[in-house]
Amino acid sequence: MLSDAAKQAIEIAKTIKAQQGDDLKPEQVKFLRADADKNTSVPIPDNMKLETFQGKVSGELYQLNNSVKDTALLFIHGGAYMTGSAKSRRNLCFELLNRLNCDGFSVDYRQWPEAKHPAGQNDVVAAYEFLKSRYQKVIVFGESAGATLALTLTLQLKAEGKELPERIVVFSPVITQINIMTSEFLNQERDPMLLGAGAPVPYFDDPYSTDPLISPINGDFTGFPPLMINCGSEEVKYDDSKVLNYLCQKANVDVTWDVWQDLFHVFVLFDMPETTQALNKIAEFLKK
Amino acid sequence: MLSDAAKQAIEIAKTIKAQQGDDLKPEQVKFLRADADKNTSVPIPDNMKLETFQGKVSGELYQLNNSVKDTALLFIHGGAYMTGSAKSRRNLCFELLNRLNCDGFSVDYRQWPEAKHPAGQNDVVAAYEFLKSRYQKVIVFGESAGATLALTLTLQLKAEGKELPERIVVFSPVITQINIMTSEFLNQERDPMLLGAGAPVPYFDDPYSTDPLISPINGDFTGFPPLMINCGSEEVKYDDSKVLNYLCQKANVDVTWDVWQDLFHVFVLFDMPETTQALNKIAEFLKK
Repeated sequence: MLSDAAKQAIEIAKTIKAQQGDDLKPEQVKFLRADADKNTSVPIPDNMKLETFQGKVSGELYQLNNSVKDTALLFIHGGAYMTGSAKSRRNLCFELLNRLNCDGFSVDYRQWPEAKHPAGQNDVVAAYEFLKSRYQKVIVFGESAGATLALTLTLQLKAEGKELPERIVVFSPVITQINIMTSEFLNQERDPMLLGAGAPVPYFDDPYSTDPLISPINGDFTGFPPLMINCGSEEVKYDDSKVLNYLCQKANVDVTWDVWQDLFHVFVLFDMPETTQALNKIAEFLKK
Repeated sequence: MLSDAAKQAIEIAKTIKAQQGDDLKPEQVKFLRADADKNTSVPIPDNMKLETFQGKVSGELYQLNNSVKDTALLFIHGGAYMTGSAKSRRNLCFELLNRLNCDGFSVDYRQWPEAKHPAGQNDVVAAYEFLKSRYQKVIVFGESAGATLALTLTLQLKAEGKELPERIVVFSPVITQINIMTSEFLNQERDPMLLGAGAPVPYFDDPYSTDPLISPINGDFTGFPPLMINCGSEEVKYDDSKVLNYLCQKANVDVTWDVWQDLFHVFVLFDMPETTQALNKIAEFLKK
């Protein structure tokens, strides 16, 4: 049974869905991003220090009083490579960091319309390497497009023979830029948040490429660190999680797939009891 | 419980799977086609007259003694737009015609390596128009790539405002040239016949196009005639049927989806009790 807060979140999700379309204009995207920064960012709590980075590495570094100093969380926001930002995801990131008792870096990677692939990928890799230069272990959390980037980051590190993250959590991952997975159709009416089966995001010049760094459905997950997948049962992206779980199992990855019944794409962005429950499980997994 | 014949067919299917790969060479394709013609074609039975057509319309016309003369079956073979032929599918076509008691035309459409899209599509449209010039009603049966062509034929006729087939049966349909549907992965080990998640067939220059005449998953099925879908539960193409059924239901098409438990891609090509059962149901549907 969903909590009342979750039922309200579903109503809010519906208003997001109602505004969707395949033809977001650059100025609309910039407005949505600024609007999210204004309305969903929260102040820095007393137990944290914020350091803002801009340049080769961009994002927000959060240092906690008395945190463990060998581990840091790389937080990768979503937003279809368009509308997300570190600032707008502070609340979720702080919830995780307080549970993990470690420092975190929320990467502000380049998105459309300012940039195109592989700019965002390069920025995420740079953020990971920045953290690795300061902390022994890096754990990763990504949601939606940020989940894709968590996977493509690790695929690139693996291909380059570099040290991988210790553990990864992907929330509502997207594993292909071609929106024809079964649930893109069958969950179209059930998903309160996303339309499904739409055109590819404009961030990729060639969304139909089989490059695993564009669509990780084409990737080889052998050797991946322990991975936890979370998704809602009603998502149009549900089958992305289903196939990712399959690909990881076949590659002998230590993979866990949590399906949250009756919930939707990145519901973890909403403050509700189900989010608390999911974050507790995620933190437990990342701390192992 | 599968029949013994079905269990044997699964073993044969496995040998087909074992020979598969993404890199069939033109000479191999021609050999496979000639081999199938030699080994699986059957003589014309006494109750039928064969007329072979070559040119703008190519294929085999079968006229039955005492058949109904207002209706004809358009039979569209499969074979990945490469290895199929009318001749190699005679047995299946005759089984259908005898049940339907009507004449039939099995179209020999152009395939790779001799041709590329839209040559095959044009040939199927020409065959349909040829039948419409001789018979009042045309019913359609297509298997695998032939099922795709049954759908793309109807989508084109609809777009051109032409008269549609009366009824359509698709067996193991393929509705996208991009092999990333969920079952392409999850049924990889269960499907005895097809590898799954492979490269697109070479017949299309642009398999990633969203043209519904290339990938009917992008089509609008509104106004389609009654459609029957058949597939095996173990197919890597299972989700193609699942999504086709969804798209047709949403478009208010009179659609029926028969899933044959524990069976595989185009099992109807094998002589076994399950095939008899399926053909009886298909003929009953087409005769309605």
